[in-house]
Amino acid sequence: MASSPRVKGFAHERELARRLWKEGFAVVRAPASGAKTKRVIYPDITAIYKKVVLVIEVKVFSKPRDAYIEERKIRRLVEFAERAGGKALVAIKFIGSGEWRLVDVKGLELTPSGYYRIPKSLIYGGIKLEELIERVKKGLEF
Amino acid sequence: MASSPRVKGFAHERELARRLWKEGFAVVRAPASGAKTKRVIYPDITAIYKKVVLVIEVKVFSKPRDAYIEERKIRRLVEFAERAGGKALVAIKFIGSGEWRLVDVKGLELTPSGYYRIPKSLIYGGIKLEELIERVKKGLEF
Repeated sequence: MASSPRVKGFAHERELARRLWKEGFAVVRAPASGAKTKRVIYPDITAIYKKVVLVIEVKVFSKPRDAYIEERKIRRLVEFAERAGGKALVAIKFIGSGEWRLVDVKGLELTPSGYYRIPKSLIYGGIKLEELIERVKKGLEF
Repeated sequence: MASSPRVKGFAHERELARRLWKEGFAVVRAPASGAKTKRVIYPDITAIYKKVVLVIEVKVFSKPRDAYIEERKIRRLVEFAERAGGKALVAIKFIGSGEWRLVDVKGLELTPSGYYRIPKSLIYGGIKLEELIERVKKGLEF
């Protein structure tokens, strides 16, 4: 039986959550969407390392392309990060290379159709997961 | 149809999560236990206010009594809080008065049967939810 895209997405979220946990972060994944949780939009992953809070939306791509994320998702991500005193990030995984890149939601452009666009160039310019982890653990800006 | 104790517990967790959200905290509730999440023990509630992280286990009582919590739950709560640079707390609600008291897990006693005991006196000596929120928002110790 083939997995649905949503199920596949969860597997990648879990991978990212586990890597962050292994690196010493406290990690919480969003509850699976159910009737009762739908009203609230949680970040896919909230990862905390000694008071540094990363609020993460996960995206998975099989080939390089621009990413689009619903306006309300980005808004909630930003609100959550502001409350927490943390940073709102989109984590993009490329299936194939398995590489993760992280992009700060600040600087994203809202399209007239109500989506935030992350151009390919911004994704490739994003910080690599390994580097982000290293910077957080050293207490450096990222 | 009567609700199960576990369902009732969730309702109180939700109440606490909503109050903290309303007060400006970023809040994540643990995913409902399912086959895939059982291996990982998440805190019932993780609440963050400008880098102050509260890692919370929720207990609900209908009458005053000592509370007992499994050793592995407390251990995970403490580990999670240490990673996050936050504080591990047990939030106790008294049905009836509706009052919440919070107790720091430091100073709890492990019983020979493998449970951490929170004596009634410690519960009543715990900080009230309203006071905790005020202190966190003012940047004071709690």
